[in-house]
Amino acid sequence: MFKFKVIGTDGLARAGEFSTPHGVLRTPIFAPVGTQATVKSLTPTHLSELNAQLVLANTYHLFLRPGDEIVAKMGGLHKFMNWPNPILTDSGGFQVFSLAKTRKIDEDGVTFKSHIDGSTKRLTPEISIAIQENLGADIIMAFDECSDPTDYAYSTKALRRTHAWLERSAQAKTRPDQALFGIVQGGVFKDLREESARFVSSLDLPGHAIGGLSVGETKSDMYHTIEVVNTILPENKPRYLMGVGTPEDLIEGVLRGVDIFDCVLPTRLARHNSVMTRHGRLNLLNAAFAQDEKPIDQDCACYTCQNFSRAYLRHLINAREILASTLLSIHNLHTLIALAADLRRAILDGNLNQFTADALTNLKHKKEKP
Amino acid sequence: MFKFKVIGTDGLARAGEFSTPHGVLRTPIFAPVGTQATVKSLTPTHLSELNAQLVLANTYHLFLRPGDEIVAKMGGLHKFMNWPNPILTDSGGFQVFSLAKTRKIDEDGVTFKSHIDGSTKRLTPEISIAIQENLGADIIMAFDECSDPTDYAYSTKALRRTHAWLERSAQAKTRPDQALFGIVQGGVFKDLREESARFVSSLDLPGHAIGGLSVGETKSDMYHTIEVVNTILPENKPRYLMGVGTPEDLIEGVLRGVDIFDCVLPTRLARHNSVMTRHGRLNLLNAAFAQDEKPIDQDCACYTCQNFSRAYLRHLINAREILASTLLSIHNLHTLIALAADLRRAILDGNLNQFTADALTNLKHKKEKP
Repeated sequence: MFKFKVIGTDGLARAGEFSTPHGVLRTPIFAPVGTQATVKSLTPTHLSELNAQLVLANTYHLFLRPGDEIVAKMGGLHKFMNWPNPILTDSGGFQVFSLAKTRKIDEDGVTFKSHIDGSTKRLTPEISIAIQENLGADIIMAFDECSDPTDYAYSTKALRRTHAWLERSAQAKTRPDQALFGIVQGGVFKDLREESARFVSSLDLPGHAIGGLSVGETKSDMYHTIEVVNTILPENKPRYLMGVGTPEDLIEGVLRGVDIFDCVLPTRLARHNSVMTRHGRLNLLNAAFAQDEKPIDQDCACYTCQNFSRAYLRHLINAREILASTLLSIHNLHTLIALAADLRRAILDGNLNQFTADALTNLKHKKEKP
Repeated sequence: MFKFKVIGTDGLARAGEFSTPHGVLRTPIFAPVGTQATVKSLTPTHLSELNAQLVLANTYHLFLRPGDEIVAKMGGLHKFMNWPNPILTDSGGFQVFSLAKTRKIDEDGVTFKSHIDGSTKRLTPEISIAIQENLGADIIMAFDECSDPTDYAYSTKALRRTHAWLERSAQAKTRPDQALFGIVQGGVFKDLREESARFVSSLDLPGHAIGGLSVGETKSDMYHTIEVVNTILPENKPRYLMGVGTPEDLIEGVLRGVDIFDCVLPTRLARHNSVMTRHGRLNLLNAAFAQDEKPIDQDCACYTCQNFSRAYLRHLINAREILASTLLSIHNLHTLIALAADLRRAILDGNLNQFTADALTNLKHKKEKP
């Protein structure tokens, strides 16, 4: 059911096809994040029009609200949120470990307080898998511990737990129509990452993820770690770099063999008036845009750029209109989704080096600084 | 340029076609309100899919932000908000008179403080028309004074001013591609409304409006006033009932010869979790909907009802997701836009009495009370 076919390569980079019960993912791809079973401010129709292939949802949030059992009763996440294409759920681990002050870790799992009502909740590998089986995504993630990536002692201890939890996650899983991905951890430490990549690979899961990056380490540490891990992870399984989503990181990740990306950044930036383009970022609240008839990016094919001026978008932001979030989210997601599609084409056309060199140059040399 | 053709009647009710520079309005219609050059939480594509024919925008708001001159420089309101179909702007009068504490009326106009920055601003008939000419809507409104509808002395005084201001509005107007509508005022007083309807009719404007209703008077006063006015207003001009927008009021208004309605109610209710249906209203935050797989209304053809359960909508509301506003706004606007279209069909098919009797019965006898 979960087959990954590499149909083109260029160095470590690959173009692939990953079959899931709800459709084939043509990688590399960027996946929008729908934390609470909605990509913030967008309808599923918007996502289809953006050619989004995969949407994420967060186990932590849906466990607390509306509750995974309600989602299951309503027919599962695909039906609940009206997204008939592939969905991925994370394990809840990352969110729980972010609750630094209110969570308590033991070897069996994590006890924490709900951010909604303060009630005490617990997640273990088994509970996380049970929740994810109720939610019903195509791709589900093992419950892992994300350490401070620059703390060797903590990263070593967390890694041991992550590996034990991965085995328990795989044991707990019952649904054959869901692919469990194991997560490579180990901070920025080469030996830990190598150990983790080897361990995770050994379980013969249908896909692998790289976790614990883009959380404060340097860019060069991040890129180096991706390379270390991806030279070990088997080539015949998809690789998912978790929580990474700038245009630069997509390019650098694809060059190092990443197939799947996700990040809240494009929609979060949109709600803070900021747009990503292939020529850098702009803050549209800047007064310089008040009478600017141009679209965000004249070369962009998204609905927002095809139909609205910077002056109008700035007005919507200024007037605190919801439509600003929608239109900026459409643009930012388009930037990453289309970039991933272009990277795929470049791999298949055999001109990835030229394409990525040009793209990185454009990102560094902004066309205009308002 | 502005021709109104009545193509079917049933009693006072009519089905018509009103030609404007940006298209033909097939009346009766309900027009969504886009106060700040956006119908809150919806894209123009949503409005097209809803078969919205006419969109309103508010002169008061756009005068203050972004400023009518900026809108003019950006190519006018149609281009600015990307709505290629007909637009109507009000005069700003209603909003200014709502600023009870900070406005000062004289015979020439009104001085008031901006709700945005507290600066002193002024509107007169001439200024209102100049702003509306900058905005560039197809239908523009005369600057009028909306009195307390149950205060005879004030209504009389306000009416004199409204009539003088209507003559000045008509004098000030220069653009041939905009239709100026005169507004009938006079509170709930038959003699004042008759006087006003006769005066407004005498100016031979391309359309007429009924103002100052749905502002606190009883329903029977409102319906009676509409009837009084519409038996005087000429049949060969469209009639616009300002700020009225419940299903009941649409039906009662059409039965009394109204062609155009607008109201913020459907989008405002949506942002407060409330949905309008042909069987009454529901508040979707009600816990009874937490596991309700049904759409808002099983007979409704809107995008929201075709694709989402009450349980999902309640979850979005509960989780404070923007998408809740969008999906509820789509449903509420569909309810009124489709009802107006059905009323038109009933007029043309000669079964208006049966249709409206059934529709009013359905509204009074809710299918289910959660």
